[in-house]
Amino acid sequence: MKTLKIIKIGGNVIDEDQALQEFLAKFSKIKGPKLLVHGGGKLATKLANQMGIEVKMTNGRRITDANTLDIITMVYAGKINKNIVARLQSVDCNSVGFSGADGNSIVSVKRPVKDVDFGYVGDVEKVHTETLDILLKNGITPVFCAITHDKKGQLLNTNADTIASELAIGFANQYKTELYYCFEKKGVLKDVNNDNSVIELINTKTFQALIDEGIISEGMLPKIDNCFHAIANNVEKVCIGKTEMLFDADSIFTTIEK
Amino acid sequence: MKTLKIIKIGGNVIDEDQALQEFLAKFSKIKGPKLLVHGGGKLATKLANQMGIEVKMTNGRRITDANTLDIITMVYAGKINKNIVARLQSVDCNSVGFSGADGNSIVSVKRPVKDVDFGYVGDVEKVHTETLDILLKNGITPVFCAITHDKKGQLLNTNADTIASELAIGFANQYKTELYYCFEKKGVLKDVNNDNSVIELINTKTFQALIDEGIISEGMLPKIDNCFHAIANNVEKVCIGKTEMLFDADSIFTTIEK
Repeated sequence: MKTLKIIKIGGNVIDEDQALQEFLAKFSKIKGPKLLVHGGGKLATKLANQMGIEVKMTNGRRITDANTLDIITMVYAGKINKNIVARLQSVDCNSVGFSGADGNSIVSVKRPVKDVDFGYVGDVEKVHTETLDILLKNGITPVFCAITHDKKGQLLNTNADTIASELAIGFANQYKTELYYCFEKKGVLKDVNNDNSVIELINTKTFQALIDEGIISEGMLPKIDNCFHAIANNVEKVCIGKTEMLFDADSIFTTIEK
Repeated sequence: MKTLKIIKIGGNVIDEDQALQEFLAKFSKIKGPKLLVHGGGKLATKLANQMGIEVKMTNGRRITDANTLDIITMVYAGKINKNIVARLQSVDCNSVGFSGADGNSIVSVKRPVKDVDFGYVGDVEKVHTETLDILLKNGITPVFCAITHDKKGQLLNTNADTIASELAIGFANQYKTELYYCFEKKGVLKDVNNDNSVIELINTKTFQALIDEGIISEGMLPKIDNCFHAIANNVEKVCIGKTEMLFDADSIFTTIEK
């Protein structure tokens, strides 16, 4: 089986123009089939402020009402996605922008209302890889934004980390899938204040110990849950770190194992 | 050769939710390869107003400065395009949203500054049909917004009518291409105030006569120029009218011929 690299980049790369440009130039040189997933960065909040639309939060989590969904669709699928695709073309990486609606690639269900009504947030139900794979087999790189749909005409806001892991799982029977979560730190840190305290390997056993000891911070838990979910569903390799981990053989980062 | 239908819809269909839904349900049932091009409607102006961004005009023509390009990218490639794709999926029409950057499909050059600096407006230079055709051959419908790129990383605003005709021309050596311009009138009218005064056939000879007689209004000229440009470059058929012309065998509309 061929290897498929699924790479998720977050806000820190997207918000800085120069960092994005440099990343995409290097990304374009990665050999073999690859797929890019991007988050949203600060642009959505900035646009909401410009439009005088209030960002609603409950317990620190954003509520996606109809206006917020519009903003997210415009910023993620419009401005960020198309600018990434245009820049990839400029470095001869043929790419096509995707949301979960395109090619019916990711179908999700609107999160059921329990204690909190999160609004237009989608929990992934089914990944269809057919259209994406047609492009990959033709040397074209899909670029994914964090939007899905419910197959009934409704777009839904979905976490970009989750989209990356679900795509990796969806492709796991066709490719050796490798999942790379790029973010602003070198990896999962033993000491949040020491960027060099990278935990290089986490497996199910050590993960529980790290939680028990209070070493893994609450903010990291959802990301690592996505990693273990991927590993448990036949994804070959999951790594967390700075984008350097993709390009620099000597870089230090976190690998998640079974 | 197979027939490829390229259908352009404008503001009137996009601005009315019910009209769009009905159109897409019918569009999904069109047999054979098809490609949808959409304009922007009033949403871009509305968003500019909400954001307090001034719409700059010169001689009635919009100037696309950096802010306006952002708005157009967000509204056309984001909100409108993704909502159309999601709705097409809901009626089982597998589709993928495109700008000219996606698949490097439409490369344009920033319009040279002469008397007027139009800003980030692109004049089409080259159409690459390869990626689009891979999808068409797999039964997938591309949905195009009116944005192109310069292959150097810059997105550009391009007239949707022009995009439709350039795509039709680009595909003319692989398909019998038919181009349908849907708008709010039944066709080109002899009398602007009489919606039933449709000129059913226009060719190069009668076109000149219609201009000389002052029958064709100035607003229609760019659209008809696009039509003749397509006809002169091996497009099989060009029609102008309401969306009904696609679905109702008895409907009256304008056909442009050599």
